[in-house]
Amino acid sequence: MKLLEEKIRKEGRIYPGDILKVDSFLNHQVDTAFIKQIAAEFGRLFYGSDITKILTVEASGIVIAYATAQYFRDVPLVYAKKGEVASMSKDVYSAPVYSYTHQTQYQINVQKNYLTKEDRVLLLDDFLANGEALSGLVSICKQAGCEIVGCGIVVEKGYQPGGDLLRAQGLRVESLARVKSMTDDGQIEFYED
Amino acid sequence: MKLLEEKIRKEGRIYPGDILKVDSFLNHQVDTAFIKQIAAEFGRLFYGSDITKILTVEASGIVIAYATAQYFRDVPLVYAKKGEVASMSKDVYSAPVYSYTHQTQYQINVQKNYLTKEDRVLLLDDFLANGEALSGLVSICKQAGCEIVGCGIVVEKGYQPGGDLLRAQGLRVESLARVKSMTDDGQIEFYED
Repeated sequence: MKLLEEKIRKEGRIYPGDILKVDSFLNHQVDTAFIKQIAAEFGRLFYGSDITKILTVEASGIVIAYATAQYFRDVPLVYAKKGEVASMSKDVYSAPVYSYTHQTQYQINVQKNYLTKEDRVLLLDDFLANGEALSGLVSICKQAGCEIVGCGIVVEKGYQPGGDLLRAQGLRVESLARVKSMTDDGQIEFYED
Repeated sequence: MKLLEEKIRKEGRIYPGDILKVDSFLNHQVDTAFIKQIAAEFGRLFYGSDITKILTVEASGIVIAYATAQYFRDVPLVYAKKGEVASMSKDVYSAPVYSYTHQTQYQINVQKNYLTKEDRVLLLDDFLANGEALSGLVSICKQAGCEIVGCGIVVEKGYQPGGDLLRAQGLRVESLARVKSMTDDGQIEFYED
């Protein structure tokens, strides 16, 4: 999505340690008009997929998930909650997620009654790098027995393994911008659409 | 807002310890069509207030904030991030927030460049009880020198002190449902509009 690539080039900031900050429009301040265009693109890509629910992880996936639901007849969204590994319960689907950024493991949880076998689920998130959070969501969907229609990602770091790992499982992964490389002095390259 | 009161009566669950769960439609699973009506009501209440930004706290305020922005010419929203007390930085406005639910203190943070003196800010959140999170947002706005147009709350526990504390500071607080009392056996009463 050219518009997104331009936005990242213009507003994104790169920090040492392979960190790309897009918090002026995506995940701290939110450019709500721009997010509508992101959501419309997911609407176009997954048009006709008979989605019954959108699933994401708090907090930074929520805006994308809510905006996109409007393109699928206002289906409900569910956001997995982050919690302690200890907070597992019988009523909850859980999966461990390792955060490379914070070098800690946490648990994501979804109450069982909010995902059913009949659901056709679109997974959405803002970033995909090592694929930890998304793999956690996939695990939760498998526990619930629902069908995963696909994964929609705003920014994929294409040189990290997450996207390929998910595609190798047969999942449809659509990333609106796929970073090919970035350098500490601010250069960023994208894979062609 | 009668529609919201009915929704809470129908779907809300009360647990010992004064806990009201509305996670079937507001803050875990999200009834996106219903949230549009919530947002429209905030749009009506704060119509003509010349709002330039919406401010909330991750994670459960984000859906409300995004949905409501659409009624104010797609102004940007900013969500304060939760972090360690230690994570303060020169580039960040911070305020401590005490969580009565989890009996811990955490910090909420907003990057300085996302709130300016020129901003006219609407504060939104899903719940108001002791007012800790909202007071943190008020503190951040004061640090930034921006003007607080008002506070929009989905569910206020009217028998807890947060709402009155904020109103006593001269803030306009609009709660779409104000709980007057609730009992462990599931009875809930609201203040009249």
